[in-house]
Amino acid sequence: MTITRQHVIDRDAAEAVSAPIISYVVTHGDVVYLSGVISDPRNPGPDVQSQTREVLHRIDELLADAGTDKSKLLSAQVWLRDMSTFSAHNEVWNEWVDPANPPVRACIQAQLVLPTLLVEIKVTAAR
Amino acid sequence: MTITRQHVIDRDAAEAVSAPIISYVVTHGDVVYLSGVISDPRNPGPDVQSQTREVLHRIDELLADAGTDKSKLLSAQVWLRDMSTFSAHNEVWNEWVDPANPPVRACIQAQLVLPTLLVEIKVTAAR
Amino acid sequence: MTITRQHVIDRDAAEAVSAPIISYVVTHGDVVYLSGVISDPRNPGPDVQSQTREVLHRIDELLADAGTDKSKLLSAQVWLRDMSTFSAHNEVWNEWVDPANPPVRACIQAQLVLPTLLVEIKVTAAR
Repeated sequence: MTITRQHVIDRDAAEAVSAPIISYVVTHGDVVYLSGVISDPRNPGPDVQSQTREVLHRIDELLADAGTDKSKLLSAQVWLRDMSTFSAHNEVWNEWVDPANPPVRACIQAQLVLPTLLVEIKVTAAR
Repeated sequence: MTITRQHVIDRDAAEAVSAPIISYVVTHGDVVYLSGVISDPRNPGPDVQSQTREVLHRIDELLADAGTDKSKLLSAQVWLRDMSTFSAHNEVWNEWVDPANPPVRACIQAQLVLPTLLVEIKVTAAR
Repeated sequence: MTITRQHVIDRDAAEAVSAPIISYVVTHGDVVYLSGVISDPRNPGPDVQSQTREVLHRIDELLADAGTDKSKLLSAQVWLRDMSTFSAHNEVWNEWVDPANPPVRACIQAQLVLPTLLVEIKVTAAR
């Protein structure tokens, strides 16, 4: 099956900010893998709800680039910097997710790449 | 390929406990994704071994609902609240897993949704 | 689709060190799942760069055993014991990864199985 890679961070871009060389989207057959998505690290939102909205909006864009959308989500991993924000995060998730077609999910607390980042989400979808 | 979703938490159920709208089982072609499974949060087991048994029993049920079983596990992620329980957790895992057909796995320490939860396991299986 | 398991840790080997029974490689159709790979726990490297090199070398070996290589990576999960080593880790990652074919990735901070372990990486590849 064919592998397609989109939004590849090249060496120069990665090394400029000590970041890893990654793809943001990899499609293999009819499965679409997305990288973990965070708020813009140069200007992260002030709270978990604004950051969750930004992350989910970016996931919508990346899924669209891969020719799919949130109604075909298979699996999601959510990392919250502080589990006390779980309910606030879920409110935004629940407004966003297709209630007829939600993915499987797990959510744990974790320190992310920068202390200002409050949520990261990594999804896999069909297309 | 067809996507099938089972044990979907609907909006009313999710919002009643500030939980996310998710599916517990998503099947895409012949791959079965399960949500992260935890002990019953209203009455979690007292130690990591009882919680691991409960989680693995629930995984057996969900795999059966998807038409498969633990002999077809592909991958597992284990989160332990306290890594000092790794050996105790592994004893229960090793009694349960099909020794001829174990999945790949990773295990890290993490804070879960509630402090009383000592273990969470998320698996992917073929069917 | 056929499931193939390689480098299966048997019960005796697992129980000798209170470790889990797992496969290090599971192949399902043309998707290859690897277990989380760590430095040799009996003699882990002294810093994140040496451990990352060891882990990535072991991943190369396991991918080769499955009939594939790093140019076909789909997804990677990286766990760092200390996020302050992110840039140092990324330098080694960026030397290793195929810059034309990088996987999607997420990286979080987490306590691993032993305090001496500074990095763990789990990948999925096509073949």
